[in-house]
Amino acid sequence: MARIVLDAMGSDRHPEPEIAAAHKAAAHFGDEITLVGPEERLASRITNPSVHLMHAGDVFEMAEHISADELRRSQNSMAAGIQMVKDGKADAFVTMGNTAGALATGLYKLGRIGGVKRPALTALFPVKGGRCVLLDIGANAECRPEYLVQFARMGAVYAEIILGVANPRIGLLSNGEEAGKGTTLVKETYPLLKASGLNFIGNVEGKELFGGLADVVVTDGFTGNVLLKSSEAVAKLLIDTLREELYASARTKIGGLLARPAFNRIRKLLDPADIGAVPLLGLGGLVFVGHGRSDERAVFNAVRMARQAVEGNLLVRLQSALAMEPESQVEVVG
Amino acid sequence: MARIVLDAMGSDRHPEPEIAAAHKAAAHFGDEITLVGPEERLASRITNPSVHLMHAGDVFEMAEHISADELRRSQNSMAAGIQMVKDGKADAFVTMGNTAGALATGLYKLGRIGGVKRPALTALFPVKGGRCVLLDIGANAECRPEYLVQFARMGAVYAEIILGVANPRIGLLSNGEEAGKGTTLVKETYPLLKASGLNFIGNVEGKELFGGLADVVVTDGFTGNVLLKSSEAVAKLLIDTLREELYASARTKIGGLLARPAFNRIRKLLDPADIGAVPLLGLGGLVFVGHGRSDERAVFNAVRMARQAVEGNLLVRLQSALAMEPESQVEVVG
Repeated sequence: MARIVLDAMGSDRHPEPEIAAAHKAAAHFGDEITLVGPEERLASRITNPSVHLMHAGDVFEMAEHISADELRRSQNSMAAGIQMVKDGKADAFVTMGNTAGALATGLYKLGRIGGVKRPALTALFPVKGGRCVLLDIGANAECRPEYLVQFARMGAVYAEIILGVANPRIGLLSNGEEAGKGTTLVKETYPLLKASGLNFIGNVEGKELFGGLADVVVTDGFTGNVLLKSSEAVAKLLIDTLREELYASARTKIGGLLARPAFNRIRKLLDPADIGAVPLLGLGGLVFVGHGRSDERAVFNAVRMARQAVEGNLLVRLQSALAMEPESQVEVVG
Repeated sequence: MARIVLDAMGSDRHPEPEIAAAHKAAAHFGDEITLVGPEERLASRITNPSVHLMHAGDVFEMAEHISADELRRSQNSMAAGIQMVKDGKADAFVTMGNTAGALATGLYKLGRIGGVKRPALTALFPVKGGRCVLLDIGANAECRPEYLVQFARMGAVYAEIILGVANPRIGLLSNGEEAGKGTTLVKETYPLLKASGLNFIGNVEGKELFGGLADVVVTDGFTGNVLLKSSEAVAKLLIDTLREELYASARTKIGGLLARPAFNRIRKLLDPADIGAVPLLGLGGLVFVGHGRSDERAVFNAVRMARQAVEGNLLVRLQSALAMEPESQVEVVG
C-alpha cells in the first residue's frame, strides 16, 4: 500500500488524464489516491471511494524566477500536494507539471535529505537489454565533483529498487573511456568515484550507455539534458524517416504493415509514457515529475513508478546511503 | 581539380582501403592524388599514373601526450602529408588516423588561421530534410564564449560550401530554448552571437537540431562529442532492436524482407561512411579526419568531401570570415 497524492492540474490536458488515471490506479493497486486541485472541477468527477480530494484553488504558473515569498504564499495544487508529503499524509507526490516548479516547491517545503548538496532529476533510459538510470538530466546545469558522487550514490539506490539489480554498475559520462578524458569536472570526479566504494566501472560514452554496460550513469544536468533530448529526437527522426520510406512503394508498404507488431514494440520501448514519471532524488520527500503531454496511460504509469519507489522504501534507503558517505571526504573536494 | 594527399596508414585495415580509394578517386574525379606511407608497402600497388607516392617510413603512434620534440622529429605519414599542405604541394590532407594526432600535427606544422583561438572538429549530422553542421565535436573539451562565436563563423562558411545554403541559420546548443537557459558558457555566448551579424536563431535543443531547424549548431567539444556518440548509439540500438523484433515471427520476418529497401536507405542516411571525413576547421591548412574503421567507400567519400572543400575555396573563405571579426570584441570577453 502506498499513499500517492496526484497533482490534478499538471498535464497539458488537465484534469482529465489525472482523474482517469487516479481511478484506474485506485482500482488496480487497491491504493488510496488523493487528487489535488480545485474542488469545483474535481468533486463531481470522483466516483471511487478510494480516490480522495484535496482542495487547492490555484494552478502553478510558469515563471522565470520563483521567490521564497511566492512559494510561502502559494495555494496551488503543487504546493498543496507536496505539503501533504511533508505532513506525512502521503508517501509520494506525482505531477505532470513544471519540473522547475516541482523542484523549487519541493526544496522549499521538504528540504533536502541530510548531507545532499543538490537534488537530481533522474531518468530511466531504454538501453540494450533493459534500462539505465541517468542523472542529472536537468536540475543542475553546472555541477561540482561532489555532487556527481552523490548522484552516483542516489542513482545506485534507485537502480536497486526500480531495476532490481544488486551492486549497480556506475559509469561516468565522458568523451572517451580513458581516465584522463573529459572536462575538469569529469577528471576531478573520476578519482572520487574510484574511492567511493561504489561499483564504479569508469568513464562511459554513448556506446556503453546504450549498450547496457552500466546500470547508472552520472553527469551534469546540462549534458544529461542535451543527451536526453537529443536521444529522443534521433529516435523520432529515425522512426519518422522509416515510416516515410515504408510508404514510398507498394512493396515496402506491405512490408511495413506486416512488420507493424515489431514497430509497435519499438515504439513502446521508446515511449516516455511507459515510464510515466521520474524522481527528483535528494529532496526530503518523494516527488515524481512526468511530461506535460502525458495521457491517462502515462499518468497511470507515473503513479505506478511512484508507488514502486514507496514500496521499495526509496527515501529511507537514500537517507542511509548518503549518511554512510564520509562527510569530510565530501567537504574537502572541489 | 584538387590536389589531395591521403594518409595511406590511417585506417584500421591500412593501407588497403586507402590504396583502393585513391585509385577510384583519381579515376572518378580526374584528380592527382598522393598516397603517403612506406614506399615498400605502396609502390608496387599503385597502378594509375594520377596516383602518386610520398614516402614516409613511420606510422603515427597513439600516445597520451605528444611533445613538440616528437612532432618535430616525426617521420610518420601524417607529418609527411601535412607537410605537403604546408609546402603548397597539396590542397588538403585526409587521414583515417587518430584525431588528436592530426590536430597536434596540424597545429604544429600549419598553425592556425589568423585570429583563430581554437580549431574545431566539425561534424555533418543527418537531420530531417538534410544535414546540419555541428561543432565542436571533440577538439576542445572546455571552451570560452569567444571560441563558440568563432566556431559559428567557421561553421557558417562550411555550411555555405558543403550544404549550399546562403546565410546559414546558427543555433546555440542548450538545455532549453529560452535565452536564460544553460551553463555560464551558453549564457555568455548568447549575447555575443546575437551581436555577431550571423543569422543567429537562438538556443536549440535536440528537437530543433534533428528537426533540421538550424544549419549550424555550436557547442563545446565535450557536449558535442557526447551528443555525436550518443546519437550514433541510439540509432544503432534502435536498428538492432528492430532487426531482432522483425525476426521474432514469420509474419514480421516477411515484412522485414519486403521493407528491406526502406531499411537500407535509413542505414545509408546514418552511415558515417557516407560523409567519409570531417574537417578540423581553423588550422592554417585543410585537414580532414575520418573513422579508423573506414572501408574503401568511406575513404573515397572522405576524398570527395575534402575536394569539395578545396573547390569551394574553404580556407580562403574561412580566413576572410574570421578577418572580418572585430578583434577588440573578441578580446574583451570571458
